[in-house]
Amino acid sequence: MNIKNYVTQKAQEAKKASKRLALLSTEIKNKALNLMADALERQQAALIQANTKDLAEAKRQKLSSSMVDRLTLSPQRIHEMAAGLRAVAALTDPVGEIVKNWVRPNGMKIERMRVPIGVIGIIYESRPNVTADTASLCLKSGNAVILRGGSEAIHSNTAIADLLSRAAQSVGVPAGSITFIDLTDRRAVMELLKLDQYIDLIIPRGGEGLIKTVLQNSKIPVIKHDKGVCHTYVDESADLAMADAICFNAKVQRPATCNAMETLLVHEKIAAEFLPRMVPHFQEAGVEIRGCEKTRAILRRSGLVKRIKAAHAADWGAEYLDKVLAMKVVKNIDEAIAHIARYGSQHSDAIVTENRERARRFLREVDSCAVFVNASTRLNDGYQFGLGAEIGISTTKIHARGPMGLEELTSTKFVVHGSGQLRE
Amino acid sequence: MNIKNYVTQKAQEAKKASKRLALLSTEIKNKALNLMADALERQQAALIQANTKDLAEAKRQKLSSSMVDRLTLSPQRIHEMAAGLRAVAALTDPVGEIVKNWVRPNGMKIERMRVPIGVIGIIYESRPNVTADTASLCLKSGNAVILRGGSEAIHSNTAIADLLSRAAQSVGVPAGSITFIDLTDRRAVMELLKLDQYIDLIIPRGGEGLIKTVLQNSKIPVIKHDKGVCHTYVDESADLAMADAICFNAKVQRPATCNAMETLLVHEKIAAEFLPRMVPHFQEAGVEIRGCEKTRAILRRSGLVKRIKAAHAADWGAEYLDKVLAMKVVKNIDEAIAHIARYGSQHSDAIVTENRERARRFLREVDSCAVFVNASTRLNDGYQFGLGAEIGISTTKIHARGPMGLEELTSTKFVVHGSGQLRE
Repeated sequence: MNIKNYVTQKAQEAKKASKRLALLSTEIKNKALNLMADALERQQAALIQANTKDLAEAKRQKLSSSMVDRLTLSPQRIHEMAAGLRAVAALTDPVGEIVKNWVRPNGMKIERMRVPIGVIGIIYESRPNVTADTASLCLKSGNAVILRGGSEAIHSNTAIADLLSRAAQSVGVPAGSITFIDLTDRRAVMELLKLDQYIDLIIPRGGEGLIKTVLQNSKIPVIKHDKGVCHTYVDESADLAMADAICFNAKVQRPATCNAMETLLVHEKIAAEFLPRMVPHFQEAGVEIRGCEKTRAILRRSGLVKRIKAAHAADWGAEYLDKVLAMKVVKNIDEAIAHIARYGSQHSDAIVTENRERARRFLREVDSCAVFVNASTRLNDGYQFGLGAEIGISTTKIHARGPMGLEELTSTKFVVHGSGQLRE
Repeated sequence: MNIKNYVTQKAQEAKKASKRLALLSTEIKNKALNLMADALERQQAALIQANTKDLAEAKRQKLSSSMVDRLTLSPQRIHEMAAGLRAVAALTDPVGEIVKNWVRPNGMKIERMRVPIGVIGIIYESRPNVTADTASLCLKSGNAVILRGGSEAIHSNTAIADLLSRAAQSVGVPAGSITFIDLTDRRAVMELLKLDQYIDLIIPRGGEGLIKTVLQNSKIPVIKHDKGVCHTYVDESADLAMADAICFNAKVQRPATCNAMETLLVHEKIAAEFLPRMVPHFQEAGVEIRGCEKTRAILRRSGLVKRIKAAHAADWGAEYLDKVLAMKVVKNIDEAIAHIARYGSQHSDAIVTENRERARRFLREVDSCAVFVNASTRLNDGYQFGLGAEIGISTTKIHARGPMGLEELTSTKFVVHGSGQLRE
């Protein structure tokens, strides 16, 4: 069978499954999720065996050690995947929830009812746990999922998806609800992106190249999880001890994530006190600082800090995803907000301040999917926000911005209870 | 200047305007809307003069009388446009509303705040009132709008948009907030659809051809307002007088609209009573019936009805937008729901029944943007639902399904109030 026919048939199966899946009881979905978790743990040996093939290929291809690490399945990681599935089973089912209801003057009772979106295509790279995470969130929210993982994890992903799908079917989840495209040919993705009659939403999870390809070629609505050029602005009225801790956490706790701070903005009135205090902490942690002229002058004068590099134009707006930090002294909150508007990526931005009015301004005026006062940007996360789980952080401005949990994987429909109402 | 540069510059201006517009006070937006309404009425003569040019061209092009009618601006229609603007001024401003708020165990207070989407591109055909309607809804919801109307109304649309934009600017709405693309060249649309760095959302309003073109070519998220193949199912336990009134209203009140009924499904147990009662009403109103075999047999036996045509395969799923109705006798609610799933367009579907359990099943299982029990499908409308106004009826499954009012023209962001919280 050619690629187009194969992918189309898979999508048709998913569409068909989605109709029954949308009406499946919470009880059956939860039973399925728990069985899927059990199956992962029971089949640990088989999964690790499949993973070994991917790791061998990775070595042949000389993939970087960090990529190999992300690819590796260990008993611990398999256990974590299973625990994730059980956690999703424990979450509230969003399907059927009445979000809002009201009565019209003519007596019509109107409800907005949460319903599944239908069929969701996930196009992702590298880490095999994404297969289990996204399958579980889609299943719980009543959506059929079409998974298309990267070629580097093809054996692991195929094994996981097959096992999850069989476990789910054993309790009545319709076949096709968890559909895996086991073609590594890139044309499979291109064909998938054309099938807007069967697929309702595409979520790409991966690097910039993947996201660009999907956006350029999709006929299906896309919710992208794009890069984060995140800022922290330390205001003149900041509690400097708090600012120190927040900035350190935002940069150092896990620098390779999209919500890690990339640029630190400091009010000029406290820069001479704050910078000589803060920068040594960064340097001890191995963070390379690239400072504006004022930053460098202050640090030079302080004598406390080793010489730091000059920031160049390309540093503003850079997503380092590493232990590198751009640093700039600003005149006031206006300059900070303007800098973020110009160079940020509307992802996660924070102000540290004790001044309520400036906090309010920052929260209102900075147009990012999450804005923080006196907290680390690293907290922009579905679990941290209490959504229970997340399928990623959306940087698309429609449907759902920020961390997407189960609710964000649903839509609503209008349900009208009448007693003979007509249009006048 | 070439088309690409022209359109890009317009989009850049809109993007720039959107940043200030998002923060504009409700007071200024309302003042602008009222001034815009005044300006329309004051400049009535100039608008009608511009419209005359479009009408002359329409005659040259021999457009149909219904198209000419839709194109025509009269003092009455200008007054209605102005009234629409004033009604939008009177609606609650959605921007800044806290949709939900909660506290996390670590003390973070989280809010979801309603924010504008940014820049919305509206691509539409024919009726010049769409220019005023959509500009007002976008302005009130804090979004900059890029309007691109059809060539047949170019003079009317240019005059309206110019007047609205100047009136809005006179009270402080930033230039570029209401941007009109006065190029009739189709390539202007193609260029617009590429500008995902400036435009956040595209809403096409018009015929199937327009929507298809937009969906096929857009790099920007699209919310489509697609066709309606709407059904009414008269259940065995229906109140037949109510069913008669609802079916008549759904078909006859305005047959050319997307929420008008196109297929009537009747339970076999009441068909012999209901059809001979209902059909003469349709025939008196000039509705052509195309019936299934059972429908025709019942009507033949009744002797009350003139001979009716046979429905062919193409009638199931047809959107007539006219006084034509397909009619089918079904065994039960299962067959009705299956028929709607197979042939419907997930737009507006109704059941008439006194049985609560079957009503519940229908509302739950029929996957349309609006589902009705004991009411006319013609009520699927923003005004009728109490949204205050509507920019159209979305048939896209993400972001907003069904009538889109001001709230549906917004997104949300996460706002976090912390006291030094870090990621563990």
